[in-house]
Amino acid sequence: MSETVIKFGILGCADIARKKAAKFAADHGFPPGTQAYGSYDAVLDHLEVDAVYLPLPTSLHAKWAVLATQKKKHLILEKPVAVDVAEFDKIVEACVASSTARMKEFISDGRAFGKLRAMHTCFTFAADPVFLENDIRVKPDLDALGALGDAGWYCIWAILWGSDYELPRTMTTSRGPLFNKAGVILSCGASLDWEDGRVATFHCSFLSHLTMDITAVGMKGTLHVQDFIIPFQESEASFSVASESGFDGKPAEHLFSTSLPQEAMMVKEFSSLVGAIKAKGSHPEMRWPIISRKTQLVIDAVKLSIERRFEPVEILG
Amino acid sequence: MSETVIKFGILGCADIARKKAAKFAADHGFPPGTQAYGSYDAVLDHLEVDAVYLPLPTSLHAKWAVLATQKKKHLILEKPVAVDVAEFDKIVEACVASSTARMKEFISDGRAFGKLRAMHTCFTFAADPVFLENDIRVKPDLDALGALGDAGWYCIWAILWGSDYELPRTMTTSRGPLFNKAGVILSCGASLDWEDGRVATFHCSFLSHLTMDITAVGMKGTLHVQDFIIPFQESEASFSVASESGFDGKPAEHLFSTSLPQEAMMVKEFSSLVGAIKAKGSHPEMRWPIISRKTQLVIDAVKLSIERRFEPVEILG
Repeated sequence: MSETVIKFGILGCADIARKKAAKFAADHGFPPGTQAYGSYDAVLDHLEVDAVYLPLPTSLHAKWAVLATQKKKHLILEKPVAVDVAEFDKIVEACVASSTARMKEFISDGRAFGKLRAMHTCFTFAADPVFLENDIRVKPDLDALGALGDAGWYCIWAILWGSDYELPRTMTTSRGPLFNKAGVILSCGASLDWEDGRVATFHCSFLSHLTMDITAVGMKGTLHVQDFIIPFQESEASFSVASESGFDGKPAEHLFSTSLPQEAMMVKEFSSLVGAIKAKGSHPEMRWPIISRKTQLVIDAVKLSIERRFEPVEILG
Repeated sequence: MSETVIKFGILGCADIARKKAAKFAADHGFPPGTQAYGSYDAVLDHLEVDAVYLPLPTSLHAKWAVLATQKKKHLILEKPVAVDVAEFDKIVEACVASSTARMKEFISDGRAFGKLRAMHTCFTFAADPVFLENDIRVKPDLDALGALGDAGWYCIWAILWGSDYELPRTMTTSRGPLFNKAGVILSCGASLDWEDGRVATFHCSFLSHLTMDITAVGMKGTLHVQDFIIPFQESEASFSVASESGFDGKPAEHLFSTSLPQEAMMVKEFSSLVGAIKAKGSHPEMRWPIISRKTQLVIDAVKLSIERRFEPVEILG
């Protein structure tokens, strides 16, 4: 971790912002009494602020992200994203970096896993009536993508992660998506296919019990994860793998300990990136905006396929 | 279990037949030296034979099943099935009856699981080169349904099981099925949807590592099974359930012991059915041909959707 001090500005009042700032401050021995400002502009105008976190509704991202960028601030956006959001994806991956790296190692192992043939990902949670009535994620003028943007985004990201970020050839939204009265997606799924015969499906919903699955099936091995969004245990991530096993081969479970709670790890990883840029003049990584844009392309295709009555949509990078 | 003696005739020479006969004979203390006949007709003509097991290629099912029925024999057919095959489905369910009943109890529990919203099933195994070249399951004139009939059949059956055998409204085969040179399906998947917003997907393949998943997501609970075809441990079946749990709620694993190896259980269950008919004049259950026909309807729809270039197919019971 870089030892350069990074000053964060937070625009917004979502729960996650307060939680993250407090947790990070506590974990890293920051002085209490973080400065509060009366307006977002005041934060952006503060010369000592290095990085800005925007826990705002998606529809407000563009305005404040552009302003923050103009003020030369590093930027963390909440997903779903629709503009240049280099850092956000980095954070998503960083939050589960230790087990993600081990999983990637397994599915990249030609002998243990072989060529990837099929993936299925699922992220659902049962939103309560208050959420379904009032949350910004179900308001067409705020987060019009609904469950697709909020939960499906992770499903698509995980599928692309498994495919080394190679875009599928076509994407077809499955019949039976559910919408609220305002037309915001509450539940949907899709199937994707690649030139080489790889296939994938995902399902996301605000209307079902918490489920956070990745299943990746290779020619020689299988990977199962049941908590890919947030590990069931804060300081432990787990997945199970099976390799060249038969009907008597119960998959082995792998547990990975992380030294910090994941929210702290997210911020630590981001600080480290910003620190490197600030202290050493490194250039921001271009890998993350590319991955983020690909996820967004698939999101767009899911919407387009719905508009076209579930016709397949070609994905052109 | 009925104590009526049931005499089995076996037509065919598949591995499973020899294994099952030997296992059953051993488990039940049958005298060694089971009678062998020079022709299938001779078995069917034997008046003392109560039941006939036909481990034959699908294309030969119709002929020998009809002949056996004409000779008043009870019948076990291997799937995939295309004619009246009441007993076979019973066996498929019976083989995992004890844990299946517990799983069904969970997903039928309105408080613990709630309404079913989404299912995903997957059955894949990596066939070896000899299988892919020579097995009857990849020959268009024998088992033209390939992986769909052999592996997909279980996936579809499991989805219908989860839906209380209510047929979906439409079925759309996913793009990217794989075929051998003779046009037999080696890998495919599909998505299904019901009137009430329930959805399901499945994937089956001869080209991927052994994977045998059921995921059922209800409004209040989630069920995961990773060995729904054949339990990893012969005398133990397991599944995990989560109910109204949050991000800190690791699913509980449930283990069920079975008193007999599952192949013996299959035959025991079938014997019990036949015994009841023979000893008490019970009528064969009509539930199983109905379920079997529904599975076959979905299989037909998968094929039709492929022929129609992945258009959705309406399922009309």
